[in-house]
Amino acid sequence: MSQINDTICAISTAPGVGGIAVARVSGPQAIAVVSKLWRGKPLNEIETHTAHLGTIVDSDGTPLDQAVLVLYRAPGSYTGEDTIELSVHGSRYVQRRLLQLLIEAGARLAEAGEYTRRAFAAGNLDLAQAEAVADVIASNSRAAHRIALTQMRGQYSRRLAHLRQKLVDLAALLELELDFSEEEVEFASRIQLKQTAEEIRAEVSRLLASFQSGQAIKDGIPVAIVGLTNAGKSSLLNALLGDERAIVSNIPGTTRDTIEETLEIGEYLFRFIDTAGLRDTVDSIEQIGIDRTRQSIAKARIVIVVADSTQPFPAELLDQTAHNAYRIIALNKIDLTERPNLPNGDAGKIVKISARTHSGLDTLRNALQNIADQECGQADEGVLVTNQRHAQALDNALKSIDRMIDGMNADLPSDLVAQDQRETLHHLGTITGTITTPDILNTIFSRFCVGK
Amino acid sequence: MSQINDTICAISTAPGVGGIAVARVSGPQAIAVVSKLWRGKPLNEIETHTAHLGTIVDSDGTPLDQAVLVLYRAPGSYTGEDTIELSVHGSRYVQRRLLQLLIEAGARLAEAGEYTRRAFAAGNLDLAQAEAVADVIASNSRAAHRIALTQMRGQYSRRLAHLRQKLVDLAALLELELDFSEEEVEFASRIQLKQTAEEIRAEVSRLLASFQSGQAIKDGIPVAIVGLTNAGKSSLLNALLGDERAIVSNIPGTTRDTIEETLEIGEYLFRFIDTAGLRDTVDSIEQIGIDRTRQSIAKARIVIVVADSTQPFPAELLDQTAHNAYRIIALNKIDLTERPNLPNGDAGKIVKISARTHSGLDTLRNALQNIADQECGQADEGVLVTNQRHAQALDNALKSIDRMIDGMNADLPSDLVAQDQRETLHHLGTITGTITTPDILNTIFSRFCVGK
Repeated sequence: MSQINDTICAISTAPGVGGIAVARVSGPQAIAVVSKLWRGKPLNEIETHTAHLGTIVDSDGTPLDQAVLVLYRAPGSYTGEDTIELSVHGSRYVQRRLLQLLIEAGARLAEAGEYTRRAFAAGNLDLAQAEAVADVIASNSRAAHRIALTQMRGQYSRRLAHLRQKLVDLAALLELELDFSEEEVEFASRIQLKQTAEEIRAEVSRLLASFQSGQAIKDGIPVAIVGLTNAGKSSLLNALLGDERAIVSNIPGTTRDTIEETLEIGEYLFRFIDTAGLRDTVDSIEQIGIDRTRQSIAKARIVIVVADSTQPFPAELLDQTAHNAYRIIALNKIDLTERPNLPNGDAGKIVKISARTHSGLDTLRNALQNIADQECGQADEGVLVTNQRHAQALDNALKSIDRMIDGMNADLPSDLVAQDQRETLHHLGTITGTITTPDILNTIFSRFCVGK
Repeated sequence: MSQINDTICAISTAPGVGGIAVARVSGPQAIAVVSKLWRGKPLNEIETHTAHLGTIVDSDGTPLDQAVLVLYRAPGSYTGEDTIELSVHGSRYVQRRLLQLLIEAGARLAEAGEYTRRAFAAGNLDLAQAEAVADVIASNSRAAHRIALTQMRGQYSRRLAHLRQKLVDLAALLELELDFSEEEVEFASRIQLKQTAEEIRAEVSRLLASFQSGQAIKDGIPVAIVGLTNAGKSSLLNALLGDERAIVSNIPGTTRDTIEETLEIGEYLFRFIDTAGLRDTVDSIEQIGIDRTRQSIAKARIVIVVADSTQPFPAELLDQTAHNAYRIIALNKIDLTERPNLPNGDAGKIVKISARTHSGLDTLRNALQNIADQECGQADEGVLVTNQRHAQALDNALKSIDRMIDGMNADLPSDLVAQDQRETLHHLGTITGTITTPDILNTIFSRFCVGK
């Protein structure tokens, strides 16, 4: 990884041609570098947070472009360093040439995520917040955006800081125990210790449990559409999507591959997985499709069981979808019968629909949205774990806590218990970056775009 | 076309996901509109040309994003109106939602080029400069960029203003003639008149003549690579491009379609047109290719005649390429012979190359660059006409001038000559927009991107 005290540059706006493009230069030499190509008010006379119209000149002194320059003097910038933003015309040529000129003037092309990495190094953001910056940029639904923004604004980090504080308090109690190990204090503090440890455990456990929901909301909630052949699965998907993205026919077994389509309903993004019909078959190609269907069901957070309401309800589908978190029964072809066939017992939410006439689709959309609301309800003050790395750290922390509690229950000496306490503290610290390594940082920031 | 006194908004950066995206709000209500979604320093307390960190809030008051706001108070902005630039995280969701919120707050989505159109309406740019803004954004070589920038910065407009001034002076002389038509003054002024008219004619003519070069430099200089089958045309193109974009084989007549590839050499963009071999054939599909080749030759500014130097030079190719502005003879397979066959007489610049070993390719590139330099040499103080509309207006102006000069030579009365003078003035006026119509403006600005 690069030095932290050199000066970096990048185009921070989306790649391609636009009305304007913004180049960012950050580092101790930012003003010196940009001064070499700037014709306008001298940069040392410019106040922080002010915008100035001027000209960028090429190495031979000819104008490259008119530009608006905004100067952010250290430490009042994103990176905490002197930072200059140059708004230029968004042509490919100008963007490319401007970067070349900045490099010739002494800057270096920024690596992916390097501005945010510097913001982290300067203490303007912790690691969980920095990761959330990338999530904010990548988010493509309101719900995903909100979770990422909450994390970026530090809500999640404050929760973790609170947990870490409790662990530090616990360490103090353990030390007290060591100091007064011969005395009465031990018994009293052990009760308090266990109680604190259980509280920490509950909170870590709650955060970890939110990961499945968090991941689903971040990436799109996976919904498998399952049913017997010819129940109208593809027609339902098409009706929801509003166009003909899946091939629809009335020949049983048409849909052999799983098809995945994303759709925004309200605040949420759903990933719909159309599946091959669940039917025993001698056709080996179709058998592959059916195996895929079983895998799709296993991965889905929600299943919609589509049944032809003019036919007896296929009870076997309830068994095959018994393990999914949420199930909706969509009784299709409701326009063809006045006495739809219902499943026995409590099969889940039932919605009567017609993929052909689109009747009942709003009810189905509402049902999906309600489930997503429940998922989001896992969030505590907007905090949901959405990051695999964090989930892993929380899982590790949980294991340490369990060992700690087991140790207390087994009346192990304080110094052994303290070891598990320190390990828990370590795992939680990796999330916000209190404890980190260059390798972890490289992995995290390499996923960013250049220019952020 | 929309009202000029409402408030418009758009994303001005390139479409897609980026580190940051910039939304622009411009119009009399810009401050009122943005105030509805801004949490930070109140906008009426903010000085012009200053940057402020704050929060954009959604309609329910929850944060949408952290943003940097820069305020440009009228008339000190691009459009001459109050303008606010909001830098937000460049996610699709944030960009979309921010526009929705601005529209809910009373702004309207800007039409293509509407910011620049307002700058034109405010008199900050004339029409030729406004058109150059789009050219600056679209330019993809240094030469094309320079011409566009020169035009945007008003060099071209000043030239036209100078011409128009001469025409106005000429009108004054014509009026003088009318006033003193009985007197001696007539003869003296007619000489001066004709001289001025000839000067104007020469300058308009020079500008018009630069259009072919201007267009070639703006869009890429068209270069046709022609030669007999198996002379190595595709191999040469591939060698220049540095990869295998055309299918190369030693079977004569492989390349049946014309292939076009762009390549930057030095400051210039070249459009290379690989062509089918020029050879009489009974194969009707190949005949189509050969017809296309003839068309490609006709359109090319430069032809490279590729000849197998181990074979007698095909003299017929010189006839077929006699009408192109520039010709380069590339004697290929120079690695296979010590006595390359040369063309007779002065066929043009000769370069000995080997597409296989890449020998001579630098010389060929230099030859191309020299030609482009000559083309650019058509520019007078960096002014080259690159715009079809301007070429048309100059052509119309030239016709009026010719009528004017003919009228003078035929000793027509001053008022008839004055009519042609006014027409010339009109045609030149359409270029900078002194004279314009909403239709012309609509056509011009519809070619812009939204957000500029």
